[in-house]
Amino acid sequence: MADNRVVVYKGPGEVAVENIEYPKLEVPQEVASAMGMSVAAPHAVILKIVSTNICGSDQHMVRGRTTAPVGQTLGHEITGEIVEKGDDVQFLDVGDICSVPFNIACGRCRNCKERKTGVCLNVNPARAGSAYGYVDMGGWIGGQAEYVLVPFADFNLLKFPDREQALEKILDLTMLSDIFPTGYHGAYTAQVTTGSTVYVAGAGPVGLAAAHAAQLLGAAVVIVGDLNEERLAQARSFGCETVDVSQGPLEELIAGIVGEPEVDCAVDAVGFEASAKPGEEAPAVVLNQIQTVTRAGGSLGIPGLYVTGDPGAADPEAQEGTLKIRFGLGWAKSHAFFTGQCPVMKYNRGLMMSILHDKAQIAKAVNATVISLDEAPQGYKDFDKGAAKKYVLNPHGMIPA
Amino acid sequence: MADNRVVVYKGPGEVAVENIEYPKLEVPQEVASAMGMSVAAPHAVILKIVSTNICGSDQHMVRGRTTAPVGQTLGHEITGEIVEKGDDVQFLDVGDICSVPFNIACGRCRNCKERKTGVCLNVNPARAGSAYGYVDMGGWIGGQAEYVLVPFADFNLLKFPDREQALEKILDLTMLSDIFPTGYHGAYTAQVTTGSTVYVAGAGPVGLAAAHAAQLLGAAVVIVGDLNEERLAQARSFGCETVDVSQGPLEELIAGIVGEPEVDCAVDAVGFEASAKPGEEAPAVVLNQIQTVTRAGGSLGIPGLYVTGDPGAADPEAQEGTLKIRFGLGWAKSHAFFTGQCPVMKYNRGLMMSILHDKAQIAKAVNATVISLDEAPQGYKDFDKGAAKKYVLNPHGMIPA
Amino acid sequence: MADNRVVVYKGPGEVAVENIEYPKLEVPQEVASAMGMSVAAPHAVILKIVSTNICGSDQHMVRGRTTAPVGQTLGHEITGEIVEKGDDVQFLDVGDICSVPFNIACGRCRNCKERKTGVCLNVNPARAGSAYGYVDMGGWIGGQAEYVLVPFADFNLLKFPDREQALEKILDLTMLSDIFPTGYHGAYTAQVTTGSTVYVAGAGPVGLAAAHAAQLLGAAVVIVGDLNEERLAQARSFGCETVDVSQGPLEELIAGIVGEPEVDCAVDAVGFEASAKPGEEAPAVVLNQIQTVTRAGGSLGIPGLYVTGDPGAADPEAQEGTLKIRFGLGWAKSHAFFTGQCPVMKYNRGLMMSILHDKAQIAKAVNATVISLDEAPQGYKDFDKGAAKKYVLNPHGMIPA
Amino acid sequence: MADNRVVVYKGPGEVAVENIEYPKLEVPQEVASAMGMSVAAPHAVILKIVSTNICGSDQHMVRGRTTAPVGQTLGHEITGEIVEKGDDVQFLDVGDICSVPFNIACGRCRNCKERKTGVCLNVNPARAGSAYGYVDMGGWIGGQAEYVLVPFADFNLLKFPDREQALEKILDLTMLSDIFPTGYHGAYTAQVTTGSTVYVAGAGPVGLAAAHAAQLLGAAVVIVGDLNEERLAQARSFGCETVDVSQGPLEELIAGIVGEPEVDCAVDAVGFEASAKPGEEAPAVVLNQIQTVTRAGGSLGIPGLYVTGDPGAADPEAQEGTLKIRFGLGWAKSHAFFTGQCPVMKYNRGLMMSILHDKAQIAKAVNATVISLDEAPQGYKDFDKGAAKKYVLNPHGMIPA
Repeated sequence: MADNRVVVYKGPGEVAVENIEYPKLEVPQEVASAMGMSVAAPHAVILKIVSTNICGSDQHMVRGRTTAPVGQTLGHEITGEIVEKGDDVQFLDVGDICSVPFNIACGRCRNCKERKTGVCLNVNPARAGSAYGYVDMGGWIGGQAEYVLVPFADFNLLKFPDREQALEKILDLTMLSDIFPTGYHGAYTAQVTTGSTVYVAGAGPVGLAAAHAAQLLGAAVVIVGDLNEERLAQARSFGCETVDVSQGPLEELIAGIVGEPEVDCAVDAVGFEASAKPGEEAPAVVLNQIQTVTRAGGSLGIPGLYVTGDPGAADPEAQEGTLKIRFGLGWAKSHAFFTGQCPVMKYNRGLMMSILHDKAQIAKAVNATVISLDEAPQGYKDFDKGAAKKYVLNPHGMIPA
Repeated sequence: MADNRVVVYKGPGEVAVENIEYPKLEVPQEVASAMGMSVAAPHAVILKIVSTNICGSDQHMVRGRTTAPVGQTLGHEITGEIVEKGDDVQFLDVGDICSVPFNIACGRCRNCKERKTGVCLNVNPARAGSAYGYVDMGGWIGGQAEYVLVPFADFNLLKFPDREQALEKILDLTMLSDIFPTGYHGAYTAQVTTGSTVYVAGAGPVGLAAAHAAQLLGAAVVIVGDLNEERLAQARSFGCETVDVSQGPLEELIAGIVGEPEVDCAVDAVGFEASAKPGEEAPAVVLNQIQTVTRAGGSLGIPGLYVTGDPGAADPEAQEGTLKIRFGLGWAKSHAFFTGQCPVMKYNRGLMMSILHDKAQIAKAVNATVISLDEAPQGYKDFDKGAAKKYVLNPHGMIPA
Repeated sequence: MADNRVVVYKGPGEVAVENIEYPKLEVPQEVASAMGMSVAAPHAVILKIVSTNICGSDQHMVRGRTTAPVGQTLGHEITGEIVEKGDDVQFLDVGDICSVPFNIACGRCRNCKERKTGVCLNVNPARAGSAYGYVDMGGWIGGQAEYVLVPFADFNLLKFPDREQALEKILDLTMLSDIFPTGYHGAYTAQVTTGSTVYVAGAGPVGLAAAHAAQLLGAAVVIVGDLNEERLAQARSFGCETVDVSQGPLEELIAGIVGEPEVDCAVDAVGFEASAKPGEEAPAVVLNQIQTVTRAGGSLGIPGLYVTGDPGAADPEAQEGTLKIRFGLGWAKSHAFFTGQCPVMKYNRGLMMSILHDKAQIAKAVNATVISLDEAPQGYKDFDKGAAKKYVLNPHGMIPA
Repeated sequence: MADNRVVVYKGPGEVAVENIEYPKLEVPQEVASAMGMSVAAPHAVILKIVSTNICGSDQHMVRGRTTAPVGQTLGHEITGEIVEKGDDVQFLDVGDICSVPFNIACGRCRNCKERKTGVCLNVNPARAGSAYGYVDMGGWIGGQAEYVLVPFADFNLLKFPDREQALEKILDLTMLSDIFPTGYHGAYTAQVTTGSTVYVAGAGPVGLAAAHAAQLLGAAVVIVGDLNEERLAQARSFGCETVDVSQGPLEELIAGIVGEPEVDCAVDAVGFEASAKPGEEAPAVVLNQIQTVTRAGGSLGIPGLYVTGDPGAADPEAQEGTLKIRFGLGWAKSHAFFTGQCPVMKYNRGLMMSILHDKAQIAKAVNATVISLDEAPQGYKDFDKGAAKKYVLNPHGMIPA
């Protein structure tokens, strides 16, 4: 029986939309048995998906840079309407429209209690932290789909206060599941505050979100660097300065803008698939650049993904996640490095308020572009080519034109 | 004219005590002209040195691992009595006994105002941050000497409240100039608090200080790792658990003590001269180990020195400070990395109070051992061989027996 | 049917042990209907109570200083063994011995997600925050009993790692449900750290716990003030300095100990039932004293209870919770005031680790004294008279002698 | 000899511009002798004043609500050009245009080292903290003048990077000496962040600055309350919501705007001269209102001045600074109260950057209005009547039209 459809990885460079079972109120068997919980999930809901976005970290799998098997379901940026709920969902109701943090979290372990929901201890047998539709994350079904299961729903979900308003602002609100908080986490951990000068490495959706977040946090100047001119133009469209990092030493490009070769704060929104020049792998180049251009005493926010294994890397050491980092430089400058998945729940409520009160324009910043679920394979291809767009899938046609 | 004597670097493996001029109330010419300040230093004092310690970071120079020229004066762990003061020293007097933070700081730049005195912007033409008696730090004369100049004295100096009490506890108080705050900074940035389990890499004086600091911060368990059994025994002498890191995978050794392969917090008190086995350079091994053994969501305090250039390294990349770090591992665990020189002034007053009220026994923890100024060359040799001692020089015989 | 026994308020000055129903896995009807949750509580457990303590805040009710009705069940300091659990209790099992934070918290609301479990929004129709066995808190049954219901058990309970060890250290661990974290919260919010000088107002169990917490946080000197000499002697028994606050201006008494009339940090562990002299109500006296004796720039931790209504107060304004506070004094000193119920969950795990590794001796500090459930009425009387004891009830005889 | 002119208090309701001596590089005799420093001030500069503002706290003196003697010089909101400097001013030069934090601070005491420059220990014999031109603050001459002495200049002064740009933006930059940081401190300590709902009590210049600061900090909604419709209109002019606090219970007025009777954060920008109705003293009314309307777990920023003595108060207890505060209410909500003078130096650099990069429009928010030094007496009168203006004096005609 097949009452659900989901985007599936079919091999390097290929995805397809396939039929799968309609979700049940059950956690994956492998998670339940490893973690000692019941398969039955009275804490869970089924969501009818209103919007779900394609993410750069999905691309890591689709490019074949991970061990994701053919058949891996995809999608962890989910917004939806509750259509069914378990007996222990106490504070949400059928009909509520909610944002789903991409981090799956139990709300009951030591890390969740400490607000570190990005490294929940109870939802992934392989390691701390999990996500929907991702390799080695416990087998949670992806949400580039029509319907999806969300466990520990009272804890995980962020309910929008008003249904009509939510649908009206859905292109902004859909970014709350991942990239807006993730970009904000980068800027926040980089200690961006009133009057800061900021460098954001990467003008993909997370970089653009970090740049917009830096503006919300009060930055005086936000400089975005990339190799892709179309994406840099997108950054300029909402008031950022930009640098093409292939055009000279970064510190000189920055000095051309702020009058000195350093900024107060830097964000790495690129991660391990970094390049110094188009087409050339240089996995530590951004880490080294942000040490170079950040002032002594500054902080580095590193939301860009670094992996423990990268089987497709050119460099054998990079294949096991070992990078050549000029760590002595950061040490000499007393830098602090903040890494890891964004704990979405720490930020999504405040960012929702900013959207609802028209203080944040994240959809515009990342150039949100709606496509149908069936167009997902094309969306993956265009995004991989560097389109300056954030693709939002519309599985039920609920997104207003 | 030669009314002062100071320890001087004479080439790899060699130091000597030599005569130099008695200090004047003047800043080094190179600092004054580069920073636009007057050579005359109305803000400075001359200290008669009561105690001054040999530090592991002096050893980097003496081993020939830096570009320190022959003739470099040494010593940045200084405690002394004011014997002369400039016209703008307002709140200290001749006769006061004071601790000197090893970081030279102006108290007037942006970083000093933000408590980041380890990266003061006004005292070193080469880069942010400076110290007494160190290569590439602006030419400030070292304090393993009889007398020394201390600039910006009202800002830099920590006055002991009572002269007699100070001399009585001098072996503890002498550690306030560097290693006690440095170890504390490592434990503090590693977020050690009530009930933490802690791993400290390195049982040299900074590691022992970090271990004792972790105890003061409330750690439930402190585990110290090293290759040197004599130093591990020293760690056990004040209640630490220990592991010989050559005896197996570190996570297993730790599991043997706390019942799980991870701790809450880790401190790297080793730095770039790390080894996995005796005699074998492995500059990133400690950085990689602390990522392995620290729990997801934990913090890494890294007071151990990493340099931008290490001409003597076996590995060509390490020569320019580039290390092979398994950064993906820390990222997967959402680790935060805190690096850099300790801003001593942030901690020294509180630690002084702990000493004066008998809450801290740092001299005992690091095995403070008094020698004369003339014995300094022998002290350097013994320390380099791994003696589990912290050598305290006694240039004026003021340290009570 | 009566398979449970519980301490009940019978009118001013009187409590009794009465029979009540064995608890069901259900939340109070009034909470369920006001908060929109189900009466059935798949998230809950039934605990067989191992130990449960008499608290000073119970005394407020028993003295008739609140609107508690006759029949109010009592007890919110609970440690117990799980004997039954609901279908959505995933990470705990029958047989686990756990500490119950006195704050009832849902783990699913905005405040709980922000670690503010003392002001959970979902468990008390009257206002934010709730507790077991307390007036105007939603009707949760008290835990000075044989059995008790704990809702949202996976979130609320702190499981002890080893049953045997737990029973062995039960007199320390029983303090984790309230007074140890509450005292710690006072010291922590007062910013006690390495080397601080600290004044704790009140030598009742919370004051003693705050004093011991200040020691764990690294205080150089801890001074405890009270009018009751027996309680002051108890404070001295574990290394505190003490002052009898009736013996002169507090600032002078403090100067006699630390050499100056101010301390770095102060804790109000008294609350609204304060007196300047025995028997004389002066509800703001402690608040005013801590402003007087805390240095400019210092913080005031105020875990002592202040109420919105005190029908029994002598002063008509105090009856509605309005106190005459010399607020201009604190303002001139830039004081920060931290108030409210301790969010126990923020601290209890670390404090448990301190107990299990013998770093904290809280039972000794507060003079834990075991009595039977039937002796509770006498315990209330003795405690009210100022006995320097913390009474621990032993409903099932499980506390080892 | 009289080469300087300054605004002077002449008795209740009256100020005049009078001749005084041109400043010398000397600290006041009473400060020097009490604090043990030299009268000669090699650390000081003389400023030619470019702009200097009338402040609400000057009004407390002028209204006769303090013990200020006739002859008290006035003015602590100063921006100027260095025309003379002492021998120990190392990092500033004649010709630099700088903002002067109203807090006089030494940069050398424990509090200054901890960034608590509002309670410097070395500049005021009467208590911690000082200011220019203020009663009981050590006798520092006021800066509503042509020239003024600034001690510890390297530490205190914030230099503007470019002279021409500084003069162009002087109406914004002049607010850096006090009200912009003070308002920001209120919002910052109230924990305003991305998405917060905020209530600011008081629409005078500090309230308007707090409101604008809340916007910069990312507030979703800022509500300003006052009794003065002209000032409320000013608040609306830059995007704030407003409430006339005489028009009903504040919680209802707030609910009318945000849909619930509480906000996340509140700022008291009124202080002890509060009124519930025009003309009626009610010194604790704002403190009580902000407790009422701030959510459980929220913070209260209290930059509004509360005094230790108010000889002119109607209420005898208020005369000694004792107010009737419903403290039990804040306690029940776990509120944190942050009081005291703003430590300007913590914020002024970032706010300057915001101004220079056109992120902040503080002059417009507070309706900066330039008048001559001779018009100061009229400015005081108009401001006292409630003009929705911030008066900026222009002693040398250097402010561009």
